[in-house]
Amino acid sequence: MVGGGKDAFIGAVHRMAAYLDGQIELVCGAFSSDAKKSKESGEGLYLPANRVYGSYAEMFEKENLLPPGQRMDFVSIVTPNHLHFEPAKMALEKGFNVVLDKPMTLTLAEAKELKTIVDKTGKLFCLTHTYTGYPMIKEAKELVRQNKLGAIRKIYVSYPQGWLSTFLEASNNKQAVWRTDPNKSGIAGSMGDIGVHAFNLAEYVSGLSVTEVCAHINIVVPNRKLDDDGTVLLKFNNGATGMLYATQIAAGEENNICINIYGEKGGLEWKQQDNNTLLVKWLDKPAEIYRAGNDYLSPLAKFNCRVPPGHPEGYLEAFANLYRNFALTVRAKNSGATALEEWKDFPGIEDGIRGMAFIENVIASGKDNNKWKTFDV
Amino acid sequence: MVGGGKDAFIGAVHRMAAYLDGQIELVCGAFSSDAKKSKESGEGLYLPANRVYGSYAEMFEKENLLPPGQRMDFVSIVTPNHLHFEPAKMALEKGFNVVLDKPMTLTLAEAKELKTIVDKTGKLFCLTHTYTGYPMIKEAKELVRQNKLGAIRKIYVSYPQGWLSTFLEASNNKQAVWRTDPNKSGIAGSMGDIGVHAFNLAEYVSGLSVTEVCAHINIVVPNRKLDDDGTVLLKFNNGATGMLYATQIAAGEENNICINIYGEKGGLEWKQQDNNTLLVKWLDKPAEIYRAGNDYLSPLAKFNCRVPPGHPEGYLEAFANLYRNFALTVRAKNSGATALEEWKDFPGIEDGIRGMAFIENVIASGKDNNKWKTFDV
Amino acid sequence: MVGGGKDAFIGAVHRMAAYLDGQIELVCGAFSSDAKKSKESGEGLYLPANRVYGSYAEMFEKENLLPPGQRMDFVSIVTPNHLHFEPAKMALEKGFNVVLDKPMTLTLAEAKELKTIVDKTGKLFCLTHTYTGYPMIKEAKELVRQNKLGAIRKIYVSYPQGWLSTFLEASNNKQAVWRTDPNKSGIAGSMGDIGVHAFNLAEYVSGLSVTEVCAHINIVVPNRKLDDDGTVLLKFNNGATGMLYATQIAAGEENNICINIYGEKGGLEWKQQDNNTLLVKWLDKPAEIYRAGNDYLSPLAKFNCRVPPGHPEGYLEAFANLYRNFALTVRAKNSGATALEEWKDFPGIEDGIRGMAFIENVIASGKDNNKWKTFDV
Amino acid sequence: MVGGGKDAFIGAVHRMAAYLDGQIELVCGAFSSDAKKSKESGEGLYLPANRVYGSYAEMFEKENLLPPGQRMDFVSIVTPNHLHFEPAKMALEKGFNVVLDKPMTLTLAEAKELKTIVDKTGKLFCLTHTYTGYPMIKEAKELVRQNKLGAIRKIYVSYPQGWLSTFLEASNNKQAVWRTDPNKSGIAGSMGDIGVHAFNLAEYVSGLSVTEVCAHINIVVPNRKLDDDGTVLLKFNNGATGMLYATQIAAGEENNICINIYGEKGGLEWKQQDNNTLLVKWLDKPAEIYRAGNDYLSPLAKFNCRVPPGHPEGYLEAFANLYRNFALTVRAKNSGATALEEWKDFPGIEDGIRGMAFIENVIASGKDNNKWKTFDV
Repeated sequence: MVGGGKDAFIGAVHRMAAYLDGQIELVCGAFSSDAKKSKESGEGLYLPANRVYGSYAEMFEKENLLPPGQRMDFVSIVTPNHLHFEPAKMALEKGFNVVLDKPMTLTLAEAKELKTIVDKTGKLFCLTHTYTGYPMIKEAKELVRQNKLGAIRKIYVSYPQGWLSTFLEASNNKQAVWRTDPNKSGIAGSMGDIGVHAFNLAEYVSGLSVTEVCAHINIVVPNRKLDDDGTVLLKFNNGATGMLYATQIAAGEENNICINIYGEKGGLEWKQQDNNTLLVKWLDKPAEIYRAGNDYLSPLAKFNCRVPPGHPEGYLEAFANLYRNFALTVRAKNSGATALEEWKDFPGIEDGIRGMAFIENVIASGKDNNKWKTFDV
Repeated sequence: MVGGGKDAFIGAVHRMAAYLDGQIELVCGAFSSDAKKSKESGEGLYLPANRVYGSYAEMFEKENLLPPGQRMDFVSIVTPNHLHFEPAKMALEKGFNVVLDKPMTLTLAEAKELKTIVDKTGKLFCLTHTYTGYPMIKEAKELVRQNKLGAIRKIYVSYPQGWLSTFLEASNNKQAVWRTDPNKSGIAGSMGDIGVHAFNLAEYVSGLSVTEVCAHINIVVPNRKLDDDGTVLLKFNNGATGMLYATQIAAGEENNICINIYGEKGGLEWKQQDNNTLLVKWLDKPAEIYRAGNDYLSPLAKFNCRVPPGHPEGYLEAFANLYRNFALTVRAKNSGATALEEWKDFPGIEDGIRGMAFIENVIASGKDNNKWKTFDV
Repeated sequence: MVGGGKDAFIGAVHRMAAYLDGQIELVCGAFSSDAKKSKESGEGLYLPANRVYGSYAEMFEKENLLPPGQRMDFVSIVTPNHLHFEPAKMALEKGFNVVLDKPMTLTLAEAKELKTIVDKTGKLFCLTHTYTGYPMIKEAKELVRQNKLGAIRKIYVSYPQGWLSTFLEASNNKQAVWRTDPNKSGIAGSMGDIGVHAFNLAEYVSGLSVTEVCAHINIVVPNRKLDDDGTVLLKFNNGATGMLYATQIAAGEENNICINIYGEKGGLEWKQQDNNTLLVKWLDKPAEIYRAGNDYLSPLAKFNCRVPPGHPEGYLEAFANLYRNFALTVRAKNSGATALEEWKDFPGIEDGIRGMAFIENVIASGKDNNKWKTFDV
Repeated sequence: MVGGGKDAFIGAVHRMAAYLDGQIELVCGAFSSDAKKSKESGEGLYLPANRVYGSYAEMFEKENLLPPGQRMDFVSIVTPNHLHFEPAKMALEKGFNVVLDKPMTLTLAEAKELKTIVDKTGKLFCLTHTYTGYPMIKEAKELVRQNKLGAIRKIYVSYPQGWLSTFLEASNNKQAVWRTDPNKSGIAGSMGDIGVHAFNLAEYVSGLSVTEVCAHINIVVPNRKLDDDGTVLLKFNNGATGMLYATQIAAGEENNICINIYGEKGGLEWKQQDNNTLLVKWLDKPAEIYRAGNDYLSPLAKFNCRVPPGHPEGYLEAFANLYRNFALTVRAKNSGATALEEWKDFPGIEDGIRGMAFIENVIASGKDNNKWKTFDV
């Protein structure tokens, strides 16, 4: 693991997600750019001192010298955005498979370069768009893919949070500080932090691609340096249209990502805060409540459930699905076996490129007086 | 009553709303442009034959000749849009107070002319934006007015319906036929039918005015003549921003108008399909569930509740609140008494003008390549 | 109308319910045992002075002298329980059809006597068990009747309120005073006020009859004279079992009557606070959300809906369904026509007898050390 | 681990719960009474062959011979009920701390004997009543403990499942087979499988003890050998009353355990299927929605949350809270440190005794014609 030291939020989440299924063991880490902090963090995680490194460069170097069965099988990079590209590049080039937090890089150009490296090295790569790990999202994707709703016409995806409603970066809230800092986050705040999740979810479930955007991007809290709010009109490659909003100043909202998709014959509704439920609405019969864990679900959804219906799974389990699926694919590759289709169902380098394109396109559109901007990649 | 004959939908709704509180009696009507149909409709409503008229012109004429205590106190006009202006104008000029269905007229120009007539005649005028009649909407308005949420920053209002997902106007569905016909509905379909309700709700609750719009207006169902879907980015006069969507092709949706408003300190959420509940969310304490009928509500909200908490009121009661408040105001005026503030809380001619401006601005913006269009009135 | 003067709660509800559909006109009343109060109440309701009576005896007397087309068609009796039997008896014997509030009488003996009179006079009789007026309750009844769930095995019905959590009868709350007074309410408090509704709902929806009860009846608030809380185990005539609770000391609850019924193949769930929804759950497929106003509902349910799906109807509309159906039946009878089956779908004298039996059986069981008590009628 | 081989359900759940926080490592196991199956299961869990045992007796024997830092710190016993007492006894006597699945034993007598052994050996003991591991249940407990609701008056707890609606034990469903077999489950079916969870939840949240029960216990599905349905009236030691039902024939229900508690001033509502929400209802102000992860929660609740608000945690996280808290307590004990109060917040031997008493009392009451049975322990 790179990053994820003692004060970090997402590092601990990655570890729980990785631990859950008993398929992945944390064997080494460079948890902080401060060697002392890295050491302390490693101790707290019951790692042997010789597998806790003072820098990721050192880690890749030294792990690489260990015999294959002993060295780490892949690395998780859970640092702030500005520290994604370099360690990912280095890890790949040193021969390690990579799990990387989103947004993938600081710029679209970096994203494309990373893809070149992934392609060249042939290493496996996973980008942690957690929300696509939910079983009911997979069910939604399947219902769309099987044309149950008819041609898709309309996609609404919204992602309200409220935690940046005040000028929190003036406090010592570490999350707020780096996420609102252009040097660490890149050109986007809320669009890069959460908008990109919403975008990924829309494309994942619908199987469609955004082709044009019209964005209204705002800095609502005075003195903030990056956007904390934005709404984007969308056009998709099949002629469907849609709307995405992501805001971090919706006071009183927690982490309420929702998606509604409508086709000719019916619609889907999913809300992360009730993640085990997928509402399926029909033109001329009662809506149905699809629930996680049930036998009637698609194989893809069921493969991503752990417990019987009525035993709620949540965010960590969705996250764990990414890790488990990635680990199964890594293990298959390492052992020369063929990975099943459902194992390979995790977000990858292409999602990262489209995500970075999303950020650059909506920030550009937000500054433009023309209504529509082609979604350039 | 003008319109609302046997096959009509909204006429019957108006009558139930008017009857509910025992304050209003139906005394006469011109229920159809077909005199025979009008007569039959009147019979079905237990009206004496001499108060059922073959045309609204005849009705205004003859009712006007009756002694004041006997003639109708006001007229409800519940015809399709293209038959709003003429009868409203005539009624006002003949000395009758008017209740008119929305959208107020066919064009903004007509709306302005109607305002001139209302001003000139001094008659009372009510526009039936039903959703503002809900008690929890009134509570929402009060919470905003009292600055409980701090300055308003963000307004989302959505109004999905699914009933026009197919080319229903090819059937003999009377509602679908006229609502998709430019000659009867005007320049807008969904924007005029339901978008204008969403717009009115946003301005009513927030107490703010839209100043700029960026609209994406679509005809989704092939061969349809008017928009059946649209999304609009909004700017408000206090610097707040927002988004409105109204669609009639969201297959599987019934009539799901919702509003979310966020201020510096908290947010509000109301969904018509759970109309007796208002969620009030706070930055740093638990969200609260305000419920209709409770003592803790504002006087304005309580004035619009009829039954104790837990006895659901609904759409007809919201509609009835408009009628009751209007009737109380009419009675006060007739008797020379002063109408209470809460009696005068019904939508009127200004709402009609802004509604027509909404329609014209969003249709224009929808055709424009520039992102933002000033909201011209 | 008998009772329902200025301070009453349920009288106003009856009037709104009766007015809603424009089928019923209030023509006379004896609104209070205090003649002056009755007169004032009548004035407030726009009645001519000569149709406002000082007592119900006077009303029945004088109305009876009016020509058939002019006299009232039926009387609504909305007084406290101890004033149900006498006016109902007198009305029937004077030739009037009767609408009576629940519980029907003070005792089961009175209830049986009233049945004799109804049978003898041949007059129409309606008991206002409001909750059976909801369209989705009618849909539930239909689904059970059509055996969609298979044989019914389990029925849970719960009715929590919180308004009697304090010793409210010490205040001047008129509702609390009479409802906790054995002289006015009879032998039961919460069981007679709301338990009987829950009981009626369970039998109505299931089409089954309770055969044995085991009741736990409590007075929770010190010094109260009648039960304010009770739970009853139930056995039904087909071998199904169940549980009913009704409590008025569930602090924070409004009026939250709910029913869950399970058969061999699936289950139903309905909550009055979301009255337009009926959840239909299945053993091996997704649960379905049946919603009021939709075409897919049974004719019986649709007959009791007024507006399209997504336009919430509520408590007053459910109440109005009783009145409308009763009025249609009265009109049919008066005109010699045959009443349709769906017109006759309102609670009647048999419901009243079973309701009074419920009260007497559960109060007796509550005092008994034996577990089960036969449900005697 | 004892039990939890390849086909088992709850063994895998225990392992995920134990893994989640990175505090517990699976080091050995006797996964099946079939040595070959145990071996295969151990391989699938990446255990070294020498730590996979053919029987629990062998495991306790051999682990005991390992040096303290190497041998297992505690054992999890996840076998069917009839295989709880013997391995637990043996483990304790061999010096191992024990995690045991519920119900604790086959009989109350065994439970008491086990307590004697726990007391004698001084080993730590955890019983996996998962539902008390939910953070919002801990918040509920805290709100009651702090007297926020006033004296508790009423407790309703319900636990409907539908999976035994058919005679599933005739199929090869392993779960159904042993859970309906008196030789493996003991004298109770649904009461022992899920009723005991509901009972434990009621006592945990309320801090009260049941003193009398009146039970109605049924075998609904023909030919079944143990109860699949039951409802129990309850009296508590402070004078409060309540009702518990647990059923496995509620067709269409998943695993819907819910609790409602009412005090003098307000009430609580929690539903496992929306486990991150606790509704707090008040007599005279709006209900509040307490949500997991928020700063306003009690320290006890927050200690059992892992992720920020709006990132749903679920059943596995609740389960993991038991394991983590137990592990922290074991580690403290092993290192001679003092365990914090919140570490010791896991169900233990006393819960097991009361649970077994619940089973024996309700089964006895179910057969008794007297209404109330003293809750004997």
